[in-house]
Amino acid sequence: MQWTKVLGLGLGAAALLGLGIILGHFAIPKKANSPAPQDLDLEILETVMEQLDAHRIRENLRELSREPHLASSPRDEDLVQLLLQRWKDPESGLDSAEASTYEVLLSFPSQEQPNVVDIVGPTGGIIHSCHRTEENVTGEQGGPDVVQPYAAYAPSGTPQGLLVYANRGAEEDFKELQTQGIKLEGTIALTRYGGVGRGAKAVNAAKHGIAGVLVYTDPADINDGLSSPDETFPNSWYLPPSGVERGSYYEYFGDPLTPYLPAVPSSFRVDLANVSGFPPIPTQPIGFQDARDLLCNLNGTLAPATWQGALGCHYRLGPGFRADGDFPADSQVNVSVYNRLELRNSSNVLGIIRGAVEPDRYVLYGNHRDSWVHGAVDPSSGTAILLELSRVLGTLLKKGTWRPRRSIVFASWGAEEFGLIGSTEFTEEFFNKLQERTVAYINVDISVFANATLRVQGTPPVQSVVFSATKEIRSPGPGDLSIYDNWIRYFNRSSPVYGLVPSLGSLGAGSDYAPFIHFLGISSMDIAYTYDRSKTSARIYPTYHTAFDTFDYVDKFLDPGFSSHQAVARTAGSVILRLSDSFFLPLKVSDYSETLRSFLQAAQQDLGALLEQHSISLGPLVTAVEKFEAEAAALGQRISTLQKGSPDPLQVRMLNDQLMLLERTFLNPRAFPEERYYSHVLWAPRTGSVVTFPGLSNACSRARDTASGSEAWAEVQRQLSIVVTALESAAATLRPVADL
Amino acid sequence: MQWTKVLGLGLGAAALLGLGIILGHFAIPKKANSPAPQDLDLEILETVMEQLDAHRIRENLRELSREPHLASSPRDEDLVQLLLQRWKDPESGLDSAEASTYEVLLSFPSQEQPNVVDIVGPTGGIIHSCHRTEENVTGEQGGPDVVQPYAAYAPSGTPQGLLVYANRGAEEDFKELQTQGIKLEGTIALTRYGGVGRGAKAVNAAKHGIAGVLVYTDPADINDGLSSPDETFPNSWYLPPSGVERGSYYEYFGDPLTPYLPAVPSSFRVDLANVSGFPPIPTQPIGFQDARDLLCNLNGTLAPATWQGALGCHYRLGPGFRADGDFPADSQVNVSVYNRLELRNSSNVLGIIRGAVEPDRYVLYGNHRDSWVHGAVDPSSGTAILLELSRVLGTLLKKGTWRPRRSIVFASWGAEEFGLIGSTEFTEEFFNKLQERTVAYINVDISVFANATLRVQGTPPVQSVVFSATKEIRSPGPGDLSIYDNWIRYFNRSSPVYGLVPSLGSLGAGSDYAPFIHFLGISSMDIAYTYDRSKTSARIYPTYHTAFDTFDYVDKFLDPGFSSHQAVARTAGSVILRLSDSFFLPLKVSDYSETLRSFLQAAQQDLGALLEQHSISLGPLVTAVEKFEAEAAALGQRISTLQKGSPDPLQVRMLNDQLMLLERTFLNPRAFPEERYYSHVLWAPRTGSVVTFPGLSNACSRARDTASGSEAWAEVQRQLSIVVTALESAAATLRPVADL
Repeated sequence: MQWTKVLGLGLGAAALLGLGIILGHFAIPKKANSPAPQDLDLEILETVMEQLDAHRIRENLRELSREPHLASSPRDEDLVQLLLQRWKDPESGLDSAEASTYEVLLSFPSQEQPNVVDIVGPTGGIIHSCHRTEENVTGEQGGPDVVQPYAAYAPSGTPQGLLVYANRGAEEDFKELQTQGIKLEGTIALTRYGGVGRGAKAVNAAKHGIAGVLVYTDPADINDGLSSPDETFPNSWYLPPSGVERGSYYEYFGDPLTPYLPAVPSSFRVDLANVSGFPPIPTQPIGFQDARDLLCNLNGTLAPATWQGALGCHYRLGPGFRADGDFPADSQVNVSVYNRLELRNSSNVLGIIRGAVEPDRYVLYGNHRDSWVHGAVDPSSGTAILLELSRVLGTLLKKGTWRPRRSIVFASWGAEEFGLIGSTEFTEEFFNKLQERTVAYINVDISVFANATLRVQGTPPVQSVVFSATKEIRSPGPGDLSIYDNWIRYFNRSSPVYGLVPSLGSLGAGSDYAPFIHFLGISSMDIAYTYDRSKTSARIYPTYHTAFDTFDYVDKFLDPGFSSHQAVARTAGSVILRLSDSFFLPLKVSDYSETLRSFLQAAQQDLGALLEQHSISLGPLVTAVEKFEAEAAALGQRISTLQKGSPDPLQVRMLNDQLMLLERTFLNPRAFPEERYYSHVLWAPRTGSVVTFPGLSNACSRARDTASGSEAWAEVQRQLSIVVTALESAAATLRPVADL
Repeated sequence: MQWTKVLGLGLGAAALLGLGIILGHFAIPKKANSPAPQDLDLEILETVMEQLDAHRIRENLRELSREPHLASSPRDEDLVQLLLQRWKDPESGLDSAEASTYEVLLSFPSQEQPNVVDIVGPTGGIIHSCHRTEENVTGEQGGPDVVQPYAAYAPSGTPQGLLVYANRGAEEDFKELQTQGIKLEGTIALTRYGGVGRGAKAVNAAKHGIAGVLVYTDPADINDGLSSPDETFPNSWYLPPSGVERGSYYEYFGDPLTPYLPAVPSSFRVDLANVSGFPPIPTQPIGFQDARDLLCNLNGTLAPATWQGALGCHYRLGPGFRADGDFPADSQVNVSVYNRLELRNSSNVLGIIRGAVEPDRYVLYGNHRDSWVHGAVDPSSGTAILLELSRVLGTLLKKGTWRPRRSIVFASWGAEEFGLIGSTEFTEEFFNKLQERTVAYINVDISVFANATLRVQGTPPVQSVVFSATKEIRSPGPGDLSIYDNWIRYFNRSSPVYGLVPSLGSLGAGSDYAPFIHFLGISSMDIAYTYDRSKTSARIYPTYHTAFDTFDYVDKFLDPGFSSHQAVARTAGSVILRLSDSFFLPLKVSDYSETLRSFLQAAQQDLGALLEQHSISLGPLVTAVEKFEAEAAALGQRISTLQKGSPDPLQVRMLNDQLMLLERTFLNPRAFPEERYYSHVLWAPRTGSVVTFPGLSNACSRARDTASGSEAWAEVQRQLSIVVTALESAAATLRPVADL
């Protein structure tokens, strides 16, 4: 070739190469340099849903409930090791797992000197004794690890007196007895479970000079009225006559000696003499076969119709036994309680899957590990799911198939049964970092109460993610319904925004979500499968907190085939994945507007006139609710707009922070100084009857009968300002971040 | 050409083009699609430093101090408009600006019935009156807008009694008088400013039955002993004989009627009868010429040497006047105070520059606007700088030259002089969003006390950014020193880490930073230029809170040429830019390690033996400090490593959140229930003498003389646990975010 040609070809080649470089650089979009998916991966979600295995859940449950595992017992410690082993498994484990131990104050019956309830005849001799243990019906109710039924934290003592029947031990029940002219001083009160909290029965009783309290489970409340052995477990799911509900009678939650401080060994501990919240008088739970012996022999006036139950006799009020009954008329009841307080080590187990993109955002999922006896339902039905979920996600993780955008933290809490102790101490120890970083807390304690329907309790921001998840999962029952479509048949409400939707319950303090929502202000939920209420009126599943809550009970009666367990596992799994992997957090803060509007309307309708009489205006509250509604809607709009484009990860992070932190704006640690840990001004305990902002409802209920200008009316105004300030603060948090 | 050749060339060309495309796509990094700079732009910084203009600061000051502008006065409102106008200026304004108004409880002397201090003779006639106003020396001390000297929030009343001299009105001063056998009941106490807070003098006096309090400024404390008119303003910077320091005598801060709630009109207000923190007895400040008439005529024992001052006579203790003085021996002093509490509107002005990348991170910079009289120094010397800084940054913004990475918020607070009211109400209204989003708070109140050196108060994380800034700015004095090099000559300490460095003071409650650091836990600083302490012992600049704090005073004596003002403006400006523009936040959290270590050492050395006697171990505290040190150092390492690479913006954001939120981990709203707003466990007020963790120091000081097992010793243990928990929580926050 000629050199000109060569030159020409060379130049042409250079030009082509150059053009190529330019095209390659500018015309082809570069793939993001991140191995992590930008958004929820529906294939991964589908895989997880498929791999959650009912059979494995059943096997988990069998192992977990094989032995009684009372908090801090050797078997409880064995399960700590089991969890650690699973979560550190090289093929199906998490990134890391560890146990953390607190030294907490628990309460146990004495092994040497069992608690006893006796009938003492006129001459001082014991003429009848209640059972000290439950009947060994299936071979699992005996043995040294089955803790004697007792009222945890009830003081020891041996009160003796005439028996009275006090219905559910509510304040009004004792007032009714007073009205009936019954002298309560020095008596023993027989009460039934339900109505008010366990500890409240003793607190109320003590105010009337009552010396001791017995608590039993009426077959009307738990067994749909059935009480004979052949109608109860192991012949049905109902509670056998000897079954006794154990439980904590402590009024607050968290370790009693270290309020607001983690119960590490070095922490300051309140002097026992200064601890508040324990029952003031000896208290002991008994089964309904023993309760029948006591109650059906009572003397005195016939109890009111609403106080009657299903023991097969007319309930009388006492005091004392009737002359024509099984015991001499002036027999007394002796309640001897020998409970002991002990400092014990109790562990939480925590496992983490590190987030690929935002490791400092935590999706926290937990359940307690400790039970009263075998605890197949409570809590092992939840732990069985926890283990299956961590296995499925851990396997994807270890295979390199998947890593979530945000971190997922799995927690197995200790000593929940004594008062949510493990979870509360955890929130005390890591208050700041949990509050700053936790996206949501998901609790699955008792996962299956019964087979009929999903039941979710939670704050409004979690509603939509639960709806999204459950619409995509098949319901375990007959037919081809989604969990959502089945759910809506059992629990529903008419939403002004969405029309008919499943209704979420609100979060009290029934399980470990309590410190997360009330103390830390983290959006929380509790997920379970539960009853068809048209088929049973049982207060809770009948063997709750008894030695009859065993694997066979679940396997035969509660969830044969474990399809409801699987349904809950899938629901929780889908919620976890959506929260951890979605680019935009699936927390719909505008769903709080409905709650606020309904609280406002209740305040207007049921308190408006009263407040007006005392020159208190709801105007500022109306304005604050309107502002919240407007800002929440506007934020929703901004998110929709952004979702259509390709937003910058920092932009999304900023919006997500607004969504995540909304719930925190409802906290005010000075709102309810007398309510330990309760700082959430929307969900604190409500004692007033009006279903509105709890501080307002309670303060109005207290002020109602006082004069204008009283301290009580000042407190109404203060509570109103606290709510208005919180709502204004919430609206300010949702506003565009550079607006003042 | 042959078709084969054509084909060959064509294929070659295609291959080259393809190669080019591949090279272009993969080999050349794509530029980030962000118009905002990734990091602090040193050219912009240089421009800002150059454009901050001493002359403009002087003109701002002239305008701001032209008229008295007491909080909520018409002139105060005029200045609100001036600020809004400047911040909304189309050429040099901010993105947005607005005033927000609170309805707050202020205290004023009566205009109809001035407060008076009279000497009443034995027959009841007034034989001498103190001055009601300051002498009109420059023509600016007269007129209706110059508020009469008074003690804000002192109650009205007309007590009359024999005069005693009580030094500074500290608890031990009154005890000394008691020891001397002086009957205090019903007397009037003459006290001098200094030693204890204003309000504390009346609180201490009232405990001894004293009926009224006078407070004066001794020339020894403020004028280096000088007191004659020709030695004082306008002939020098010293306080004229008639000058009277006004001030708030309220014990707490924030609006007195709305603690913890924003003082919006609808908020609940505490009943006046239940307000605590006001002085219990009538109190009135006077000038030293009046004080001389009173004090130099006193009868009784000679006061202790340390109680003597520079009024040119021997100070005696009283009670009452001596027979050979100017007044009859049994003359009494009458203090008639007619102060009135009034609900007034007071405004904050807030202006914002929206961040380009992280608009939800706020660098907050503020000063109060209200003064006692003209307030040229306090606070207008700070506001003059605020306006100049906002002008320079606003101009760059409006020109399109610059927009910060994070948002910058400028604040002009109302009613600071009455107790940091505007800033406190702001923190109460926006508690959550400020706590979640604020990077740091920078306060410049009195910007120039004197010309000698920089003085910075702040928490450890801000030390390094102030050092970086001041090393790059020339000091205004003679020579070619940087502000840093000049500063280190006046205030320095030997750091175990850095060697000799300028020493930062700690933050009390002297200005609007108080709610930010103590209530919200936001890293804060206060910046000013101040004295050469070898040249003056003045407690503060001499005309503080008097009608002599005028433009000419600044222009002639404090900072002729305004170069110190410029130095402070540059320092604040550089700090603001570094905080708002740096990719990695320049908050060096490991600098807290020195503080913690020194607090720990003080506890070990000065309390260790005592604690051991009471079986209290400092072991957990040692462990916690060590953990903090290790985690802070490790985080510093991780940041250094990342800085060498090209980290992802989300990664940096996560680290920055750890840095920003570290200070929050030291808050505990339950640590000091009796101390309103103080929640920071490292910087709460310390009454104990040991310079260690304040809760521990104070509790030990109270427990020292009680037996083991007392409540006071339990409180020591509680305080120790609170500190340990806070430090453990701080260490946990600094740990890698996916570690448990």
